[in-house]
Amino acid sequence: MDFNEKTFDRTVIYNGKIIDLELHDVELPDGKTSKREIIKHNGAVAICAITPEKEVLLVKQYRKPIEKPLLEIPAGKLEEYEEREEAAKRELEEETGYKANHLTFITHMYGSPGFSNEKLTIYFTDHLSVGELNLDDDEFVELHKIHLDDIHALIENHEIEDAKTMIALQYVLLNYNHYK
Amino acid sequence: MDFNEKTFDRTVIYNGKIIDLELHDVELPDGKTSKREIIKHNGAVAICAITPEKEVLLVKQYRKPIEKPLLEIPAGKLEEYEEREEAAKRELEEETGYKANHLTFITHMYGSPGFSNEKLTIYFTDHLSVGELNLDDDEFVELHKIHLDDIHALIENHEIEDAKTMIALQYVLLNYNHYK
Repeated sequence: MDFNEKTFDRTVIYNGKIIDLELHDVELPDGKTSKREIIKHNGAVAICAITPEKEVLLVKQYRKPIEKPLLEIPAGKLEEYEEREEAAKRELEEETGYKANHLTFITHMYGSPGFSNEKLTIYFTDHLSVGELNLDDDEFVELHKIHLDDIHALIENHEIEDAKTMIALQYVLLNYNHYK
Repeated sequence: MDFNEKTFDRTVIYNGKIIDLELHDVELPDGKTSKREIIKHNGAVAICAITPEKEVLLVKQYRKPIEKPLLEIPAGKLEEYEEREEAAKRELEEETGYKANHLTFITHMYGSPGFSNEKLTIYFTDHLSVGELNLDDDEFVELHKIHLDDIHALIENHEIEDAKTMIALQYVLLNYNHYK
């Protein structure tokens, strides 16, 4: 099946710091037309890091859109021209003070593909050394180290609601049972 | 730690069909101020359904923001005043022609909590009966039935990039091994 939706008109509604908003007039596979509201985002990275003590590094931070704090793996948006692996290492060190020496690719992830083009890449590492904490001016995060043995309960108790974090922790449960 | 970010000024940039965009001026925990770009969304549901033949129901559809089709569990946005379980049953039947008679809650999920308030609820069911296919006018979806035995390979081969679908399939792998 050819699913393509071709844009024949495009209006830029907003150019922001994190996101842009565009309205596209598209032609559907059956020739009819429709409108698509599209958020443009530069992309993001996240990193699931396990310490030599078998603890997963999580950060708790207030998420304004949902008006509550979430427990998440370290993550952040790509700087312009920044390579994804470098961004993941940078975010990990800035938010936790740990340096990652080797990354394993877990997956790319689209969190809201119905209206947003944000592509987030999740990495895994258990090769850590001590680095330097360095938070952004408007970033307030609290480091939580959760032992691998407690990850299953964290999920079962619905304490994880962030998509990338759920994917990373389930990946750990599926692939790192030999740690236990 | 009190992470709260209080809004002291708010500008509505756009009111759309699927999303609204607001710009908030907020006070940070240290008393400084910052701006937050916030997408408002009415919320969504998704459903991971397994047939008596032990096949997971997936739908392939073109996602305009990323300009390619994704393989996803059936999902859709909440109608106004619609209850989440009812919405999940409605979307499943509309997109696949199967009726769910009993739902199990898997998790709530925020796909992009840095800029969007979209809250998506994922359900599981293996209580299916035959219903009626009924796609929206601008909806073109292709049904794929993937056997439980092939789910692991689908993930390993990076054929799943949609966040809710990855979470649901990992959940199945972690919790439904007794099916195999």
